[in-house]
Amino acid sequence: MASSVYELENLLERRAAWSRLGLTVGLVPTMGALHAGHLSLIGKAKAVADRVVVSIYINPKQFAPGEDQESYPRDAENDCAQALAAGADLVWLCPPDSIYPKDWATSVIPSGVGLGLESNHRPHFFTGVATVVARLFALLKPQFAVFGEKDFQQLKVVEQLNRDLCFGVTIIAAPLVRGVDCLALSSRNRNLSSEQRERALAVPRSLQVACSAYAEGERSTQVLCQLGRSVLSDSGIAVDYFELVKSSDLQPAPRELSGDDTDLRLMVAALCGTVRLIDNCALDTPPCP
Amino acid sequence: MASSVYELENLLERRAAWSRLGLTVGLVPTMGALHAGHLSLIGKAKAVADRVVVSIYINPKQFAPGEDQESYPRDAENDCAQALAAGADLVWLCPPDSIYPKDWATSVIPSGVGLGLESNHRPHFFTGVATVVARLFALLKPQFAVFGEKDFQQLKVVEQLNRDLCFGVTIIAAPLVRGVDCLALSSRNRNLSSEQRERALAVPRSLQVACSAYAEGERSTQVLCQLGRSVLSDSGIAVDYFELVKSSDLQPAPRELSGDDTDLRLMVAALCGTVRLIDNCALDTPPCP
Repeated sequence: MASSVYELENLLERRAAWSRLGLTVGLVPTMGALHAGHLSLIGKAKAVADRVVVSIYINPKQFAPGEDQESYPRDAENDCAQALAAGADLVWLCPPDSIYPKDWATSVIPSGVGLGLESNHRPHFFTGVATVVARLFALLKPQFAVFGEKDFQQLKVVEQLNRDLCFGVTIIAAPLVRGVDCLALSSRNRNLSSEQRERALAVPRSLQVACSAYAEGERSTQVLCQLGRSVLSDSGIAVDYFELVKSSDLQPAPRELSGDDTDLRLMVAALCGTVRLIDNCALDTPPCP
Repeated sequence: MASSVYELENLLERRAAWSRLGLTVGLVPTMGALHAGHLSLIGKAKAVADRVVVSIYINPKQFAPGEDQESYPRDAENDCAQALAAGADLVWLCPPDSIYPKDWATSVIPSGVGLGLESNHRPHFFTGVATVVARLFALLKPQFAVFGEKDFQQLKVVEQLNRDLCFGVTIIAAPLVRGVDCLALSSRNRNLSSEQRERALAVPRSLQVACSAYAEGERSTQVLCQLGRSVLSDSGIAVDYFELVKSSDLQPAPRELSGDDTDLRLMVAALCGTVRLIDNCALDTPPCP
């Protein structure tokens, strides 16, 4: 029976009951404010696991003081209804602090793919992600977990964590979902004014422009990135980074490209007013139709 | 059949074979240079687990530059023979770097009981311990693991790690083992000259003196610790710390004791020449006969 739980012990009771029946579990960790991107993750989980758990937890460890933890969108009732309609068997509405024991004292710090890009601007961020994901994997022991490619570096961090600490979870990457205007779906989009939303379209356009230039023969990484950055700054959007990296390890792309570059990914983070947006795409796959 | 292995894959093959037979596994993690203290850990493991694995690995992550990683005693052949004779079913002689994958990039950092005492003098130490223990638990998935009370703070860190990351390992604490002269057994004792060994007896004597003063009615924590420190400095031994703490959480003991203090522990670390020695005992249980 699909339903929601608040307390950790209720979650673990349900998990144990599924184990006794030999049912596999897929986890979709979220911070709530669900949109069609999240629902696609639930669909991916449903396709492989017998039971799907959606966790909704605004993890304080991945916000620094002064970041948008307070204004992060919250909509628990609607989230539950949407998640269950999308096929979740259980929604875990984790109350603050229920996820960690009272005397919790362990941090999990990823280097490797966790360095650079987001880390340069949010140095606490991946420690928060790795710690809460380690705790969720350890508690729930899912066979599968689904993460969106929208947060591409996060996906890589989770894959690395899962390998290093041998959680044995099959990590499933779900493609980024865009709105009809090509803006990547994000819970933070709810905090954009309509004027900002219009301006924010420069984010996918910056990727599109770089992809097009590459398709038309531009082979300088520096030129491609500069084209993307110009689209953003021309729209009054502050660029945190606009980089071309190898998808496999997030190391910088070569300066000169070969034209046969199947493993390269454009990564962008930018501020539209106070709303921070991230986006990415494969260099040979323009994001917008 | 008792034996030793070098490669991780051989270890995991043996582990998998035991799982198929429904046998439980006890892990005794060591850095080699085994002594009777280690052998007592193997005995403890043997008493509860169907199969006992002794790992021998001088973990580079728990040494800082300039510490004694190079001079740490090594005696693999003798270690193997001793461990097997003591009841180990498998000795894992981990080659350097075999324990971590090539692109390993995860650190596990304990705060809580990992703060203070050793951390004040070896700030890298418990991150090294927690990371390697997390990796060993994750790889081997033992039902039991045995740690000596000689490294009392380490034992507490491992208990915390095991709880926080839900490894589900039953952690067994084994009492500290002393030589006939009352010095706590330690692999590092091999690096003491005979003159230093004589002087090192001030370490257990410092604990003994504080315990005796407590038994005779001294109730000031400061006075008890000062008595212990004096024993060490009078013997020309540099004190890193000599503290009285609560055994449960390693927080400082109250300034004034009640006389009914069953949860207090004296913790000492000191340098005899370049050899660093640690020792500890319950305040109401003098270490020497």
